[in-house]
Order: sequence, then structure tokens, then C-alpha cells
Amino acid sequence: MAAELSGGAQRTAPFLAACRRQATPYTPIWIMRQAGRYLPEYRELRAKVDFVTLTRTPELAAEVTLQPLRRYELDAAILFSDIMTPLQGMGVDLDFDPGPVVRTPVRTAEQVEALPALVPERDVPFVMETVRLIRANVPRNTPLIGFAGGPFTLMCYLVCGKPSKEFEAARALIYAQPAVAEALLDRLADAMAAYLRAQAQAGAQALMLFESWAGLLAPPEFERFALRAAARTMAALRGLDVPLIYYANQGSALMESLKQLDVDVIGVDWRTPLGTVRRVLGPEKAVQGNLDPAALFSSPEDLERHVDRVLDEAGDAPGHIFNLGHGIWQNTDPDAVARLVDYVHERSARAPSAR
Amino acid sequence: MAAELSGGAQRTAPFLAACRRQATPYTPIWIMRQAGRYLPEYRELRAKVDFVTLTRTPELAAEVTLQPLRRYELDAAILFSDIMTPLQGMGVDLDFDPGPVVRTPVRTAEQVEALPALVPERDVPFVMETVRLIRANVPRNTPLIGFAGGPFTLMCYLVCGKPSKEFEAARALIYAQPAVAEALLDRLADAMAAYLRAQAQAGAQALMLFESWAGLLAPPEFERFALRAAARTMAALRGLDVPLIYYANQGSALMESLKQLDVDVIGVDWRTPLGTVRRVLGPEKAVQGNLDPAALFSSPEDLERHVDRVLDEAGDAPGHIFNLGHGIWQNTDPDAVARLVDYVHERSARAPSAR
Repeated sequence: MAAELSGGAQRTAPFLAACRRQATPYTPIWIMRQAGRYLPEYRELRAKVDFVTLTRTPELAAEVTLQPLRRYELDAAILFSDIMTPLQGMGVDLDFDPGPVVRTPVRTAEQVEALPALVPERDVPFVMETVRLIRANVPRNTPLIGFAGGPFTLMCYLVCGKPSKEFEAARALIYAQPAVAEALLDRLADAMAAYLRAQAQAGAQALMLFESWAGLLAPPEFERFALRAAARTMAALRGLDVPLIYYANQGSALMESLKQLDVDVIGVDWRTPLGTVRRVLGPEKAVQGNLDPAALFSSPEDLERHVDRVLDEAGDAPGHIFNLGHGIWQNTDPDAVARLVDYVHERSARAPSAR
Repeated sequence: MAAELSGGAQRTAPFLAACRRQATPYTPIWIMRQAGRYLPEYRELRAKVDFVTLTRTPELAAEVTLQPLRRYELDAAILFSDIMTPLQGMGVDLDFDPGPVVRTPVRTAEQVEALPALVPERDVPFVMETVRLIRANVPRNTPLIGFAGGPFTLMCYLVCGKPSKEFEAARALIYAQPAVAEALLDRLADAMAAYLRAQAQAGAQALMLFESWAGLLAPPEFERFALRAAARTMAALRGLDVPLIYYANQGSALMESLKQLDVDVIGVDWRTPLGTVRRVLGPEKAVQGNLDPAALFSSPEDLERHVDRVLDEAGDAPGHIFNLGHGIWQNTDPDAVARLVDYVHERSARAPSAR
């Protein structure tokens, strides 16, 4: 352990080490949606370029990815893109308003059958080009996370056509036509496996699935539909030797199910205390999370107490990556983010622990 | 026990007995939003009268309340009203679009201070008149549930001004100005206590608080803000000798916290299996729930298997009231509801148990 921590050019980055549940000199931190509207430099760029153009222009997407890395000592970069981008590559006709709107919702066996496979270098080459550009320019050799939407989350948008609070049509499909739902999820799982593999081959050093709508399902339906599809994606990536991360939003009832998924890291929202998460998941998984994004609106003193709580819940065992429990809000004060990043590093470095 | 079950005019209604964790001949069932848009007779009335008028006209609100009782062998009626109605009575200027929109959001200590107390018989007399009308006309002497919004849920609407996915402004207020949030919650808790007390005095036989947005908070914030306020409301009602029900939507991470609340029944959403809920809550609480509203879109055979799962999870101990885990969806087939109600009764009556 001491040798591993002794430094030198080849030392594993703390983020990657924590994914592997190895000891790190401090708790690494990155922030979901760290490249985004809360940053004045992002808003300045967006005033000139629409969102879709931003995601499809490698120079701009790379620039946006790197913006927060210049401001903060973040321990990972994450590709700036959208979970719907590969679906556009598969020919799904969609718009952003501002959430994704699918012009022809997918609800029948025939429509599922007609969905083509994704060939990433042909269908979304600009994503891999963005990955290469980021890797060539990222400060401090910070590791880059590639990502995709979880198959069930993508299915919610494809079936419903637009974001909704309850995603009724997708959930009704699961109950009314489970075989159609499974077939759709299989297609999406395979497409996301191809997409993430291409990102890794272009240089992404960790791969993450965002299952934003995991919490719409009770455990039996989560396991049969969402988890089975995610496992299909993840199994196809196991040979790549990059850490795999699965983020389950609103997953408090799903911890026992998540334990079954063969990934390195489970990302969780702010609702379940990390002590509970780690107890249920066991020592074979690292965890990522889980400060309430609203806590960034606290006074500086209170923010430190909220961070303390997350670190204390995470405990001293290796394998914790600090993050928010959900994406950062666009009206967050950028200075609060600076305080957060610095305090997580400072406090975790002085903790008398394996960390 | 046998004497209690032997029938006769004075037998406690199964719904009320289950609230008290007494044995019942079958599992009672009612359905959140059972009076509503999925019923053609409701839509017919709504085509002629706007929503607010419906809630403020006792004859119409009573009629709508009774509509589902005529169709189905439901074990409880629930007052047709809106959680925002008492806030209108307190002078809050709001509109429905279709969700509630508060014209001047409440965000400062001065605004909280200026909120008047609620005097139900003066400010919302039509609600008590509706309760009396329902009691005089309800079929089969079915017990009537009165209700109010949970203080935290009402606070979300008051602070944000309109429904939103994340209710950022309300959650930010909790972190940024906890004392203002507490003061607002205290006012709302006292108003809802007065409101529910008046409903009971008019004839409501059980009282329920709907905490629709409980799941926005991690356990420490839930306990400090939402639960403390709900406990304040409930404590003021303890002398009334009617069962008290607290519904926590998306409360999977909150079960240990909910155990502390002095109420008869905890209502839960569909995410946490009832076996887990009952294990954590212990024998001192009845539970209400928790079929996924989407399950009503299953085939008749599959629907029975989903109902079996809920009944099996609830187990044989008394104190289970069947319900959906959230409000019924407006595109639900009314015939599926008939199948649900009848199957819950039939299957639970033949189970070889205390039920």
C-alpha cells in the first residue's frame, strides 16, 4: 500500500484507484453535470451555440468538458454529451425542448424490430473525436469518464416521447407488453455497449451508465427489466479493463438488486445514507456520491458539516468517490463548488484512515 | 376475535379495524385518487364544471366523492378536495394550470410571519359541508377519510410557486435558511391540524396527511423538517380518537424515520416491498399500499399475480389496507379497477390467516 501511495509519474490517479477500491491519499471528487449552466464560461458559449451543435462539435464539446477542470481541482473529467446522442445516431428523430422529445414514440414490436444497431464510428464519430481531443488537452492528466444512458432510462424517453413526471407510457408498456419492453431494452443495451466500447477505445478511462429513472420501478420490475439490460451492457464491456460505474437515481429500494450487478462502482442519489449503501452492497463495490445538490446553497460552515456527514457515512474503507447525489443545479454559486472540492480533499486527506 | 368478526350492525368497518391493527374478514381496499378522471362519470361532470368550482361546491364535491363507491365495493371513501384548498382559505392567491400555481411565492421570514392562521369553519366552510353531505349519503356506511397535504409538501408549492421536478427553491431554502423553513412548516402544521380537526368534527372517520414530496429529502433533513412538522400536526389530533394516516411518497430511505411518527397507519409508495416496510416499522403501525399504479395495465391474469405479491409481502398479521402506491392514472381502464377490488377481497378472504 505504502509503495502504491509513494507517488511518481506512474501513480494511479486517485479516481481510478478508488474505482478499484484501492487506498488513495484523499477522497477523489467529481460532480455530475460539472460542465454546465452554473458556470459563466459555459453560459457564454451557449449564448452563441445551441445545445445540439455543442454536443456534435468536438472542439466545442471538448472545451466545455474542460471548463470545470480549469476552475477546480476535480479528480475526473466527464465527456460533455447527452444520453440521447447515440439514439440520434440510430436514426431516432428527436428535438430538445429543452428535454428530449422523440417525434415518433417507439411502442410496438414492429417499431422495436425496425431500430437499427448502432455503429459508433459511423453514426456518432464526433463523440470519439471529442474523447480524443479531451484526452490530448485535459489538465493534470485527469482521467476521463465516458458515459451512456441506462437502457431503461432511454426506453422511458423512447416510449413516452418526452420527459414526464411519471413516464406512464413506458411503465404501462412494461406491465402490458413485457416481451416488447424486453426486446427494446435488449436493443438499447447492445447499442450502449457498442457506444461505450468505442468511447473506451478512443481513450475514455472509465465508463458510466446513468440510470436516471431507476427509481420508477419496484425491485422485481427493476431486476427483470432495467437491471437485466444494464447487466447485458456491462457484461459486454468487462474485457476492456476500465472501471464500470452504474448510477441509479432514486435507488433507495434497489440496493439489494444493485449488489447483483457486476460493476466496479455504484453511484447513488442523496437519499440513502452511504453507510447503509456500503453495508448492503458489501466490500466488492466502490460507491460514488452522495451530497444533496441543495446542500450547495448552505452557508460555508453548514456546507462543511454536510460534507462531513457524507464522508463519515462513507467510512474509512477505500472505494469512495465523492459526488453529488444528482446533477448540480444551474443556479448554484460556482464559489460554493470551489469550497466543496477543496474541503473534500482537505478533510479526507487528514482523516486518520486508509484514505 | 371471533366475536368481533361475527357481524351485526355495530361491527367495525374493515377499513377502520385494519387502521387499528385489528383482524378483519378480508383486506380492505381503497384507491388514491379513486374519484377522478379515469371515471367517465367524473369526466362528464368536469366537462361542465371547472376543478376549483368542483372542490368548493359541497353537492358536487360530495357527488364526485361517491361516484367510485357506486361502481366498486371500496372499503373507504375519501373527501374530494385538493391539498391547496386550505391555503386558498388562508388567503394564498393561487391558480390551477393544471397543477397549483402560487402567484407570490413565500420565501422570506416576513412573508411567513404574514401568513394568517386557518379558521376552517370561517375560511373553508364548504369542506365541512361536503363532509356532512358525504356522510349522509355514502353507500354501505363506508367510512370517510378526511385529508390534508403534508406541511412539507405544501411548503414545496408555496416556496416554488408551481410544481417542478426538483422543487429547487424549497430545498435550497431548507439549506440556506433553515429557521425560515421551520417557521413556515410550523404555521402549515398548525393550519393543517385545525383543518383536519374540523373535518373530523364534521364527520370524517379517519384523517390522512399526504406527503407527496417526502422523497425529496435525505433522512436527516426529512426528520428535521418534514417529519417534525407532520408530528406537530398529528400530535394535535391525537385526542380525537380517529385513526391517523401518514402517506410518504418515495419514502424508501425514510422507513426508520417514519417509525418514530405517532400515527396508526403509514402509507407507502410501490417501491419498497411491504415485507421490508412492515419489518422496519414493526408491529405498532398498520401499513397502507402499495401496488404500482402501472400494474393496472397488466393482463387480468398478470394483475392477479401482482396483487398476490402485495398481499404476500404484507403477510398475515392484521393491519394492512390495500391501496395503490400512488394515485391512479387517468388513462386506467375502470374495468381493471373492478377486477382489482374484487380480487383483493376474494383472495384475502380465503387466505388461511388472521385476515
